[in-house]
Amino acid sequence: MDMPLHLQHCQPLRGEENRVSAEIIDDLLKQLNGWRLSTDRQSLQKTVPFNNYYQTLAFVNALGFMAHMEDHHPDLGVHYNRCEIMYSTHDVGGLSMNDFICAAKVDALLGG
Amino acid sequence: MDMPLHLQHCQPLRGEENRVSAEIIDDLLKQLNGWRLSTDRQSLQKTVPFNNYYQTLAFVNALGFMAHMEDHHPDLGVHYNRCEIMYSTHDVGGLSMNDFICAAKVDALLGG
Repeated sequence: MDMPLHLQHCQPLRGEENRVSAEIIDDLLKQLNGWRLSTDRQSLQKTVPFNNYYQTLAFVNALGFMAHMEDHHPDLGVHYNRCEIMYSTHDVGGLSMNDFICAAKVDALLGG
Repeated sequence: MDMPLHLQHCQPLRGEENRVSAEIIDDLLKQLNGWRLSTDRQSLQKTVPFNNYYQTLAFVNALGFMAHMEDHHPDLGVHYNRCEIMYSTHDVGGLSMNDFICAAKVDALLGG
């Protein structure tokens, strides 16, 4: 059995051969909590609600620490009471395993 | 002469009477560096380029400190090498002086 996603680490990936196939995407999504695909299925998105800007920015920093450790960086929408997270792997032109690994690490950071 | 924008402080504002009028907006924009109006003229936007995610997040925190001090909070788009800033005043339904004051403080934070 594979190691749980949130315990895996990002690898340097490049090229379309490292895109995750459509069937695997649906399987991987089931291992995540509250993530959705963008309409073009090229990115993984989640909205995390918070009570205020202090909490939202504290989360951005915790997420940023993980992003630095994994050297894989999401786009973020930072708003007063929520953070929108968007993962995609530019170097493969869509979704790679790195996106699912980091999404699972975000879920772990948020407590599951 | 009015105090420079970046030395002023946000005030609690509510109601349409605190919206900045169209003529004043153009005047205030001249006191800012690289800010633009959204197409609906309801928000003030600036894109700040950075070299990497570390620099971008460091900026987000400096900006966040100022936002907390002024109790006026922008929406942010956080990307690998840039931050998109968007100021608007929900409680007046558009742009207030608070948006221009904070925009000037962002310029000051960035060195003018």
